[in-house]
Amino acid sequence: MVVSNLKIGLFGFGCVGRGLYHVLNNNTGFKASIESIVVKDPSKSRNLAQELISYDRRNILDRDDITVVVELIDDADEAFEIVSEAMRKGKHVVTANKKMLAEHLSELIELQQSYNVSLLYEAAACGSIPIIRTLEEYFDNEDLKRVSGIFNGTTNYVLSRVNGNYSYSNALQQAQELGFAESDPTNDVEGFDPKFKAVILTLHAFGKIVRPEDILNLGITTLQEEDSRYAAEKGYKIKLMPVIERVGHNRFTVFIAPRFVDTGNQLYNVDHEYNGVIVEGLFSGEQFLQGRGAGSLPTGSAVLSDISALSCGYRYVFKKYLQCKDLEYTDDVLVEIYLRYNIDTDISHFQWNKVEEKYQSSRYGYTIGSINLSQLIHHRQYILEHKIFVCMISDNLSQNTNQINI
Amino acid sequence: MVVSNLKIGLFGFGCVGRGLYHVLNNNTGFKASIESIVVKDPSKSRNLAQELISYDRRNILDRDDITVVVELIDDADEAFEIVSEAMRKGKHVVTANKKMLAEHLSELIELQQSYNVSLLYEAAACGSIPIIRTLEEYFDNEDLKRVSGIFNGTTNYVLSRVNGNYSYSNALQQAQELGFAESDPTNDVEGFDPKFKAVILTLHAFGKIVRPEDILNLGITTLQEEDSRYAAEKGYKIKLMPVIERVGHNRFTVFIAPRFVDTGNQLYNVDHEYNGVIVEGLFSGEQFLQGRGAGSLPTGSAVLSDISALSCGYRYVFKKYLQCKDLEYTDDVLVEIYLRYNIDTDISHFQWNKVEEKYQSSRYGYTIGSINLSQLIHHRQYILEHKIFVCMISDNLSQNTNQINI
Repeated sequence: MVVSNLKIGLFGFGCVGRGLYHVLNNNTGFKASIESIVVKDPSKSRNLAQELISYDRRNILDRDDITVVVELIDDADEAFEIVSEAMRKGKHVVTANKKMLAEHLSELIELQQSYNVSLLYEAAACGSIPIIRTLEEYFDNEDLKRVSGIFNGTTNYVLSRVNGNYSYSNALQQAQELGFAESDPTNDVEGFDPKFKAVILTLHAFGKIVRPEDILNLGITTLQEEDSRYAAEKGYKIKLMPVIERVGHNRFTVFIAPRFVDTGNQLYNVDHEYNGVIVEGLFSGEQFLQGRGAGSLPTGSAVLSDISALSCGYRYVFKKYLQCKDLEYTDDVLVEIYLRYNIDTDISHFQWNKVEEKYQSSRYGYTIGSINLSQLIHHRQYILEHKIFVCMISDNLSQNTNQINI
Repeated sequence: MVVSNLKIGLFGFGCVGRGLYHVLNNNTGFKASIESIVVKDPSKSRNLAQELISYDRRNILDRDDITVVVELIDDADEAFEIVSEAMRKGKHVVTANKKMLAEHLSELIELQQSYNVSLLYEAAACGSIPIIRTLEEYFDNEDLKRVSGIFNGTTNYVLSRVNGNYSYSNALQQAQELGFAESDPTNDVEGFDPKFKAVILTLHAFGKIVRPEDILNLGITTLQEEDSRYAAEKGYKIKLMPVIERVGHNRFTVFIAPRFVDTGNQLYNVDHEYNGVIVEGLFSGEQFLQGRGAGSLPTGSAVLSDISALSCGYRYVFKKYLQCKDLEYTDDVLVEIYLRYNIDTDISHFQWNKVEEKYQSSRYGYTIGSINLSQLIHHRQYILEHKIFVCMISDNLSQNTNQINI
């Protein structure tokens, strides 16, 4: 399958869409033509030839000469409609919509096989870092122990400010003013965005599809000055760190939570909007990849790289997924955490496997110890409502041996 | 081209060969069988079934059922004979021999095209970092500004010791005792090994083949305590840093030389046997990749990754090379350097473009300023013989505007 005569239909002309347009027009290597751009809001002014723009998705989906659909809109449901229809019509698709992907991975793989088309989505995870391609092709034959990192530029930007002694709310406000955070930042700061990315990377790293709703995502919205002071005193930075990790012989876990990292950790110096990914292979050891996690041109160039790969007939083969290894998702695993609570909060229903440290003042307290991940999933809403801050303190995971009643 | 029934003939059973053997036998994902191993020295004892071993290359090259040759021997000339014969016989080849590759790139590309076989060599550059694959596939359509990094684990190990206040000769001795440096370390410490790797990466990053003999390689053999003290006082570490960089509109340069790096540089924390590569794209910005640059299993796993890719029909397409862009190698470029000399050395024939600092004591002196790269190439032998230490002090390169007589 080599796609010649590459005619592109583009959905969405936001930050990434504009980046792609710029990169495609200013690149000397690869050429492809955008035939039509479908956008939503007719009232927005766009620096584009009028005949390129339309407001009806049929103008792309019904055109037989358009062989590649690039989907860069926000709405995940609408994106799935567009992408799946495009694939059923025999069009190849490039998308950056992590939520849509995370929620529909099995259907999308099936569509790819049934309609013999290619679906690529490098720009959906970690901006310009070629992590999906690297997992899919380079580590396709190696058993991985762990994939972790910083997958979200917005929270990392906010945390870089917090680590520089701003309060969370000031840091968030600054990030919003500078365009690094959206006006409704929930998706990022509560850790949904990195969770969707983790679901996608789990497929390529371990060959398994996990439902987003089964995975814990704790964000940084409950971060208080006590927490950043604690981190600073210990020489830590706080990072929002998704972890995908093999546990024991045939289980693996995935969670998104803040993490104290020290200078010995590769991620310590990954600041601002940068993303970083650590891949630990059984034989290759630790690989580290860093790059811009966001931004119009870096993400646009990731999309272009997919389009270029399409033109060479590239598609993901999902080797580990198709091998159907005996590997099961679990949340029954012990993690080592710092849990800070305000003094009026009852935390007695958190059942600890082991408590290492306890601290309490007239205003707040914290407990350090190991707890079952499922406890955190179970109490997530309580954690958010009571402004409890939970932060991982180590990479140690262990299979739970004691029975804990929740 | 999908290679089914993957039967491998392996040349060499040293560090990487043993690593491959281990990884192949302990990996759950990908299976291929090593049918025959040709080695040189019958007197060495090897932990292998006797029937696997032979001492005659014909036992692999003449067997039609062996479809893949993995070449992991030291000798570059012999390696080229083996690899080119294997390709002419329609066998696919995986090699880690950077010297052989750097010296024969055009012939090998031609053999690949003429005989419709694939030649892969990820393990030839930067161990387990998938840098060739990343350049070849992910950045194939993007104009790059610069590729730099730490490409040699041995010198980086030695320099990590030097930066920790050992003298160069003590550090080298330690590295040799621990097996990180060979008994004749010339290839590494004089910068030939990273130069061969730079030649290979230049092909994939810029699409151009440069002859190794046209490229400056200054190593670390002339490093004295004055130099490491200078670095420590300024908060620098010394790294051996190959640079491949676009200069002006249609020229590029390549050189291998020590470099003072500060904490702001990604490479500052790449210590010991680790390698790191920084790829700067026109649109994607700065990407950083780090991993083990040496070692039996990491390099073995890189070889296996190539074998696995072969089985899926993968081959390098050398897109930038075949595009034949108007881009020319030059050594006519100004670099900013620190040049330390011993007091009895005449350095008056080094012609500086600009001198920023001069220091002299009763034992040694140094000059900091900008000089034409071609001057350093011209005086390389003199630099080595007189134990002059040359170290780059910045990333700034500029096209030379003044005429300098050499």
